[in-house]
Amino acid sequence: MMAERTEAGDQDLENEGLSLYHKDTGTLGRNISEVLESNQESHLQPPATEPLLRSRTNITSQIALIGANVCPIESLDYEYYLAFAAYAGCNVVLATAAAALCAYIAPAAAGSGIPEVKAYLNGVDAHVILAPSTLFVKIFGSIGGVAAGFVVGKEGPMVHTGACIANLLGQGGSRKYHLTWTWLRFFKNDRDRRDLITCGAAAGVAAAFRAPVGGVLFALEEAASWYDLFSTSYHSRNAILMQKAYMWRSALLWRTFFTTAVVAVVLRALIRFCRSENCGLFGKGGLIMFDVSSAMTGYKTDDLLAVIFLAVIGGLLGSLYNYLVDKVLRTYSIINEKGPMCKLLLVMTISLLTSCCSYGLPWFAKCTPCPSDLKEPCPTIGRSGNFKNFQCPPNHYNDLASLFLNTNDDAIRNLFSTGTGKEFHVTSLLIFFLGVYTLGIITYGIAIPSGLFIPVILGGASYGRLVWTLFSPIFEIDAGLFALLGAASLLGGTMRMTVSLCVIMLELTNNLLILPLVMVVLLISKTIADIFNKGVYDQIVEMKGLPFMEAHAEPYMKHLVAADVVSGPLISFNGVEKVGSIVHALKWTRHNGFPVIDEPPFSDDQELCGLVLRSHLLVVLKRKIFSSERVLSGQGILTRCKAFDFCKAGLGKGLKIEDLDISAEEMEMYVDLHPITNTSPYTVVESMSLAKAALLFRELGLRHLCVVPKTPGRPPITGILTRHDFMPEHIMGIYPHFARRK
Amino acid sequence: MMAERTEAGDQDLENEGLSLYHKDTGTLGRNISEVLESNQESHLQPPATEPLLRSRTNITSQIALIGANVCPIESLDYEYYLAFAAYAGCNVVLATAAAALCAYIAPAAAGSGIPEVKAYLNGVDAHVILAPSTLFVKIFGSIGGVAAGFVVGKEGPMVHTGACIANLLGQGGSRKYHLTWTWLRFFKNDRDRRDLITCGAAAGVAAAFRAPVGGVLFALEEAASWYDLFSTSYHSRNAILMQKAYMWRSALLWRTFFTTAVVAVVLRALIRFCRSENCGLFGKGGLIMFDVSSAMTGYKTDDLLAVIFLAVIGGLLGSLYNYLVDKVLRTYSIINEKGPMCKLLLVMTISLLTSCCSYGLPWFAKCTPCPSDLKEPCPTIGRSGNFKNFQCPPNHYNDLASLFLNTNDDAIRNLFSTGTGKEFHVTSLLIFFLGVYTLGIITYGIAIPSGLFIPVILGGASYGRLVWTLFSPIFEIDAGLFALLGAASLLGGTMRMTVSLCVIMLELTNNLLILPLVMVVLLISKTIADIFNKGVYDQIVEMKGLPFMEAHAEPYMKHLVAADVVSGPLISFNGVEKVGSIVHALKWTRHNGFPVIDEPPFSDDQELCGLVLRSHLLVVLKRKIFSSERVLSGQGILTRCKAFDFCKAGLGKGLKIEDLDISAEEMEMYVDLHPITNTSPYTVVESMSLAKAALLFRELGLRHLCVVPKTPGRPPITGILTRHDFMPEHIMGIYPHFARRK
Repeated sequence: MMAERTEAGDQDLENEGLSLYHKDTGTLGRNISEVLESNQESHLQPPATEPLLRSRTNITSQIALIGANVCPIESLDYEYYLAFAAYAGCNVVLATAAAALCAYIAPAAAGSGIPEVKAYLNGVDAHVILAPSTLFVKIFGSIGGVAAGFVVGKEGPMVHTGACIANLLGQGGSRKYHLTWTWLRFFKNDRDRRDLITCGAAAGVAAAFRAPVGGVLFALEEAASWYDLFSTSYHSRNAILMQKAYMWRSALLWRTFFTTAVVAVVLRALIRFCRSENCGLFGKGGLIMFDVSSAMTGYKTDDLLAVIFLAVIGGLLGSLYNYLVDKVLRTYSIINEKGPMCKLLLVMTISLLTSCCSYGLPWFAKCTPCPSDLKEPCPTIGRSGNFKNFQCPPNHYNDLASLFLNTNDDAIRNLFSTGTGKEFHVTSLLIFFLGVYTLGIITYGIAIPSGLFIPVILGGASYGRLVWTLFSPIFEIDAGLFALLGAASLLGGTMRMTVSLCVIMLELTNNLLILPLVMVVLLISKTIADIFNKGVYDQIVEMKGLPFMEAHAEPYMKHLVAADVVSGPLISFNGVEKVGSIVHALKWTRHNGFPVIDEPPFSDDQELCGLVLRSHLLVVLKRKIFSSERVLSGQGILTRCKAFDFCKAGLGKGLKIEDLDISAEEMEMYVDLHPITNTSPYTVVESMSLAKAALLFRELGLRHLCVVPKTPGRPPITGILTRHDFMPEHIMGIYPHFARRK
Repeated sequence: MMAERTEAGDQDLENEGLSLYHKDTGTLGRNISEVLESNQESHLQPPATEPLLRSRTNITSQIALIGANVCPIESLDYEYYLAFAAYAGCNVVLATAAAALCAYIAPAAAGSGIPEVKAYLNGVDAHVILAPSTLFVKIFGSIGGVAAGFVVGKEGPMVHTGACIANLLGQGGSRKYHLTWTWLRFFKNDRDRRDLITCGAAAGVAAAFRAPVGGVLFALEEAASWYDLFSTSYHSRNAILMQKAYMWRSALLWRTFFTTAVVAVVLRALIRFCRSENCGLFGKGGLIMFDVSSAMTGYKTDDLLAVIFLAVIGGLLGSLYNYLVDKVLRTYSIINEKGPMCKLLLVMTISLLTSCCSYGLPWFAKCTPCPSDLKEPCPTIGRSGNFKNFQCPPNHYNDLASLFLNTNDDAIRNLFSTGTGKEFHVTSLLIFFLGVYTLGIITYGIAIPSGLFIPVILGGASYGRLVWTLFSPIFEIDAGLFALLGAASLLGGTMRMTVSLCVIMLELTNNLLILPLVMVVLLISKTIADIFNKGVYDQIVEMKGLPFMEAHAEPYMKHLVAADVVSGPLISFNGVEKVGSIVHALKWTRHNGFPVIDEPPFSDDQELCGLVLRSHLLVVLKRKIFSSERVLSGQGILTRCKAFDFCKAGLGKGLKIEDLDISAEEMEMYVDLHPITNTSPYTVVESMSLAKAALLFRELGLRHLCVVPKTPGRPPITGILTRHDFMPEHIMGIYPHFARRK
């Protein structure tokens, strides 16, 4: 008898598809509250004792496993193989649904999303990253992916989701989907939009981990690469643009803080609302996700040795994780390039493998008798709990099933739970650690939205418990605490964040007393891992080929000057330029900024007037603000355009050269570029050290940096440096003898 | 009978002068452990009931009040007036000692120290700020000041202390005090030294509040003004200096984090060590200073209204506080300028006033009967506790004495304690709030090291409880929680920090569940207070006339260009310059950087070679690396100087022009400046918007910014912008019509 399935999930990230197989009626779809009731009943009733496999004699409390969820039923009379088929089948269907969304609608939604957000905030404008379709797929794909029981997190996708929503707001809604608000036009400039997206990312972290302060720090430490986002003031002193030239740094901190405060208050209110049983299965759990505030914190100075050992190995494991993720990603990208069907097949394969591990590996664990001095019921029957019965006799539990056959969140909660040193057998922990570590590596990169935090925390927590079993004969320290420190060490080793991770760990666990230990672990594991490779997000950014500006200049840049890397030829305009030559330049180059050079009679001598942007040129051309004579139009342009016409359009939505329709006659007319020229572009002398030019570029968040000649008697500008000119690939192409920095 | 006194204090900031009056023997000097024992005994014995004042009939448990401390004694038969005289006398003596240190040894040690550290990290090099003498006075003056019972904190001074120690290390120890370490010479450049001092400040916060993460954030948000300190890379591409041109931003975050982690671990170890009675009176209290983790956190959405009200009024009170502090400081600075004796007199006056308040005001409070359902003894007899008996009958306590006649820390602990809504009467709270608020304002600015945190927290906590009494009939919310939120609101209103204050509040109280409320309160109170004036530290920086570069450009700068504010005349050198003219320029100007201009025959045309620093010129002159001909010396200078000779010397310790001894003959010789010239100075075109130039200056932490001409045919440099050229005072002097930004 093949079970049918029903899905009641997909509404929330935390409550994955929950289904019910019911023997008595053979029907499906008892509603959720009934399920809950039967769960509650089954705590009271002794587990049913009918044989499940005819050839076996051991009796169990039966469970049906659908999605990542475990549901009790009164009895089952089909085979374990059929149960597995149902379990794996549901997982595969959910996974395929998520993958199909990803593969066909928004390929950019695959993966964590944090590297993309990071690159965007660094100044990489790739509009698919934050498009509304990406948002849609990110939300529903993530629900599907987590529900399918993959070893993936929802945290990364939530950060990406936050950034996407912020972007949607920032570009004044979406015209395509008929969601527009005109008052949002105030965000139509680079800086405010970037600020908004940083706030969105922070809100994502705050919501995902319920860690508002952690969210602020994450946004500042990781996503914003600290400084960049303040970026790009194209202020021109006498131009009509409204963008502010002066920037107020702490404003961003302030805005992020405000955003996460709102998140915290709303979260708090929703949790309160859902506590009173208004939300069905949703909204369980408090503001603290993995509360260990009751944990024993009596550690001695000697215990530091064990903690240092844990941190060193954690750092090594973390860098190995990054190395392997990189290799696997490169392999997958070959597969994924072959088309959506290949993506789907890959997802299905991994889903099957995950199901095999979750369902198959617990069979290798021995049954453990329930500890006698317990407050909670053993074996556990409900949704969560430390003691899954699986195929064990009554009053026994299968420790590996408690970890594998569980939602990721509950597995972490089990591992972090204090005073439970003897609950998990060392072989079970080892199997779980290896399983989760491997699955985490091979799952990232398939075409579903997948966060990296949860796999790393799972792996780290089981690793921490393993180390604890090693040291428990010597040191008296709590196993849950060690699981927490293990998670911190692996996180430090992969993500390489310090302050924000530290605060997130604090806010996840609500135990300030372990702060010194967490700090030590993070410091050591990051230091160790930094020897071998970069943080996992940096690796992914690099692998995706996004032109990310590092916060520091590369050492070889010290040996170069600005003029060495300028790529020509330079196309410049006169202060009053012929329409034809502007159109030609816009059509045949992809430059976004052009220098404007004043010549007699408009100035005494040839001199640099400033920089004009492609987008502003297109606006003027579109409005046809031309004059037939080569004269200054003065501020006439002001009467024909409003400042908001020059706003930065939504990503990928600006005017294009193809949108213009200019007659041959108009081609011979003139445009006065002065009103739209930024007359204060940042400049460097051509002999400026490239390292210092890079610093200037990065610090001020520029897009164009004018290079001016050192000696007089030459044209007033020798070139324009853009982001690409600072990329190692570009410089290595010109000067192959500079060894690439490792 | 006049009691004699003994002092056992002065060893630590937390345990102020503790003394003992003993009737039976008339002797002094029972040692500390005996005191402790007698304290413990007195918990068990009923209080003695002999009359204290002959003319009065109420009987009390007698207390002697010395320093800020309260000691029980079995009985006393001298008058209350004598007790007050002893109390006030001791306070005045301690205060005078602290003030004498301050006034005669290191006037820079007065006040909080945070504004000075902030200014230093902003790039203001005033060497007294962090001198070893300041360090000494800061430590002992702060002990004296806190012990004298002033309403001052130790947090600000500890931040300053941390920065001073870092500076001492950073300049390779102190030659004057025979503390030198040569390996510390690696810090002999601006950037690393500033990093070190930032770490020192962070360590100070971490130690003062036992808040390591708060320390990191404080250093980054407040002290470092976020970005600045990375500062000042004088890298010259072909010069011999070792300073790194590329900077690694996250390195600072990382270093601060490491520092505070070490602080946390050491603190933890010391607390553990002292728990086992190894430290006498010291080291009481855990890692969490004001633990409210058991506080009721069941607040409803309606309660938000009360919290918002609290925050709004808190913001107003905070800005009023800043306003009054500013006025009082300006008044005091007139008094303080009249000489050390005036300083001492002022300190004595304030000390007497404080003693009067602490000792006198509790007489106005009524005696309250002890609550019946108490775990702790009532009245309290020991050092801390909520129920001071003062002059009340048995089983009664004086609530105002519990606040006023107590150490500041214990008073805060009392106010924050949960479930104690009825303990403090509203009039007592009002008197205490007004007293502390006023004393806090008039105490800051006298010649003792004095932190602002504790007064503000005290005032805020009592204010919070006052608001609670207002709302308690309507809302069911805990009084201790309200005290905490009140403290947050007043802190937000005065200090205007958000993230770091939020984390510090968290780490002080160990209760994550109130985080959303704390965030809301901080946001609102800062917003409200920002309407009226600047943060208290910014005000003090401004009042002291330190040339602090704001993180944002002033609005009027948009209307100016770089050339508008350059102050002349410009003094420049040739690439190979006569010794005489260099000496002349060094002697008659105070410029720290000079442009170097190459002329034929060393170049084709007159062109800007770079910038040379006064300190480097002095080194070359001191070493007499001269040649008799006007020729390029090539890299010859390399053989005569080592890179470390050009290191930045300790503050106020560099070579001076007076140290040179150059003969008339040598004056006619030449120096080749090329090897010591920074050939890649940052430049702006003279027509650059001043706002953008200011941004560049601030972001890259420059000291000199070269202004180059826009049109050819003029000298290759028109001026140099320094920090002072961006100061509002300078610009207002040239362009009085620009209204000063409020």
